[in-house]
Amino acid sequence: MSKYKIAVFGLGSGQIDEAKGQQAFLLGKTIAERGHYLITGLAKGVTEYASKGAKSSGGVVIGVNPNEFENIITADICYDHTDIIINTGLGDRGRNVISVRTCHGMIIIDGSFGVLNEITNGVGENKPIVVLRNSGGVADIVETIMNKLKPDYKYFKMADSVEEAVILVEQLIKSKS
Amino acid sequence: MSKYKIAVFGLGSGQIDEAKGQQAFLLGKTIAERGHYLITGLAKGVTEYASKGAKSSGGVVIGVNPNEFENIITADICYDHTDIIINTGLGDRGRNVISVRTCHGMIIIDGSFGVLNEITNGVGENKPIVVLRNSGGVADIVETIMNKLKPDYKYFKMADSVEEAVILVEQLIKSKS
Amino acid sequence: MSKYKIAVFGLGSGQIDEAKGQQAFLLGKTIAERGHYLITGLAKGVTEYASKGAKSSGGVVIGVNPNEFENIITADICYDHTDIIINTGLGDRGRNVISVRTCHGMIIIDGSFGVLNEITNGVGENKPIVVLRNSGGVADIVETIMNKLKPDYKYFKMADSVEEAVILVEQLIKSKS
Amino acid sequence: MSKYKIAVFGLGSGQIDEAKGQQAFLLGKTIAERGHYLITGLAKGVTEYASKGAKSSGGVVIGVNPNEFENIITADICYDHTDIIINTGLGDRGRNVISVRTCHGMIIIDGSFGVLNEITNGVGENKPIVVLRNSGGVADIVETIMNKLKPDYKYFKMADSVEEAVILVEQLIKSKS
Repeated sequence: MSKYKIAVFGLGSGQIDEAKGQQAFLLGKTIAERGHYLITGLAKGVTEYASKGAKSSGGVVIGVNPNEFENIITADICYDHTDIIINTGLGDRGRNVISVRTCHGMIIIDGSFGVLNEITNGVGENKPIVVLRNSGGVADIVETIMNKLKPDYKYFKMADSVEEAVILVEQLIKSKS
Repeated sequence: MSKYKIAVFGLGSGQIDEAKGQQAFLLGKTIAERGHYLITGLAKGVTEYASKGAKSSGGVVIGVNPNEFENIITADICYDHTDIIINTGLGDRGRNVISVRTCHGMIIIDGSFGVLNEITNGVGENKPIVVLRNSGGVADIVETIMNKLKPDYKYFKMADSVEEAVILVEQLIKSKS
Repeated sequence: MSKYKIAVFGLGSGQIDEAKGQQAFLLGKTIAERGHYLITGLAKGVTEYASKGAKSSGGVVIGVNPNEFENIITADICYDHTDIIINTGLGDRGRNVISVRTCHGMIIIDGSFGVLNEITNGVGENKPIVVLRNSGGVADIVETIMNKLKPDYKYFKMADSVEEAVILVEQLIKSKS
Repeated sequence: MSKYKIAVFGLGSGQIDEAKGQQAFLLGKTIAERGHYLITGLAKGVTEYASKGAKSSGGVVIGVNPNEFENIITADICYDHTDIIINTGLGDRGRNVISVRTCHGMIIIDGSFGVLNEITNGVGENKPIVVLRNSGGVADIVETIMNKLKPDYKYFKMADSVEEAVILVEQLIKSKS
């Protein structure tokens, strides 16, 4: 089976509870176990746990950095559990352009306007997007948004579990090629 | 009164009706009459009419180009009625990063995922955002999105008319400084 | 005659003497008097003087900002004498990509690696480049570089005076269209 | 020893002879054997051979793409021998900003204005730069440029062999931390 670059985007720093952290960890772990690369935006919270999960089963994690240099310390950034850091120096929204263009598909757990920005980039670039149902934040309204603005978008799915999310994003990616 | 850079973002090519076109024209005209610069993303549709309106009363229109060069012909681009073209070569979403960072505030008429992308950029960059109520598309769901994801965002307002939209965005910009 | 966007790039902050400042001032003034827009990277030094010159005769100055926001104070930036600030948030080299893509042609007075970066961007984007002879720094070696790397580049000229520089860049721009 | 991201930049498509190709191959191979990641701009010519060399000894190659999508076919791009493609969609010079910010240091074999652009980005971002002496093109004039514009730049060295180039870039990178 092909090796894809799968991005995980989700709720950022400070606000993440234990259960959501474990979900994100399992997501990263599953992505790695199925042989894919994990793409992140180097955020704290969901992304950090996903990276830890991917590394726990020997995956390769690529973090797209809003900063010009590695190891610039800012409130929302976590450089841990990452193999390869891509320094963009384009700021948060500029970084999102690169991370979304780079991934073959993305999986969303919770999140606010930053994640919605990544979703809008994804639709614009025709990327597969899978959202973990009931994970909170943008996950609770993404279907409303899709139904209103682009009901015919073929590369969007809701998933009921982490495992299903990975399977669905794989299928959507495959369906494009 | 200060001269601001006010962006107009809205429904793109092909789908715009006469009434919406006139609304966009009036919006551009009002922005220019009140002494502001009009920032656009050089899209067809709403943006094109707004630029025409601004030029009709001697305004200055600055268009932020997704393409590397001027006058590259693509389906959604209109270079007319524009004084100064900023060539980014960053593609559609990359261009949105620059146009949103550049404006002091933005006014939305209708629009789909491209406009929602500009709104999410705007929230991320702390920009004043005014949406014309009942103008369709994203305008119909933006309050739902705001209430869910960032109910405390101080720089967001709905407007009932073009004139009110310009006044409100001016007030929000002033309130930041 | 057509209105062009002409960039002035040159030696940055702190090191500029009175004579070079007056040369840069005259360059900006001449660009404005001939009806063109002045594009800058908002640097101190040569650029600052050129902007002042352009404004002294009613020109329009567009400054391309490496920072995400206006009025972020950094050592090398000057926001004065500028009509329209384009905020890129792409950092110094990212900003250079946008300012070079945006201009129709560029004029160089002195400068170091930052200006050489702008020249290499210019050659890559096929932009007319005019360098003021004997203005120091990169101006003293640019012919050597051109002869070695791209002797057939059609849009490069050395100028012996500010007036000649503006005439030459106009001619090169016209020759492309 | 630390794992670095080392970029190889050099002469592009079409013009590369067998000897230079083997030199580039050996360079990529040596980088991989010493445990480093190879960063490229996905160009044909030198970069392509270096990637092949890195893969020949099990290295990891990361290619920074000027295009928005993978596998867009353009004259100068080669996607082969690359593990992870970072899609920027920023065009050639925009891509150079990201590849240079991402690498810890760079090694140059021959090249024209595109490579000189990467060198100027590197100096601006304070990156170690090692140039293979007598490899042609920009390699023949880079010392002249450095002596004129930035004689005190601490992170620049000429190397007499591929092996020396890798050792020198490692030392320069280490000297920064």
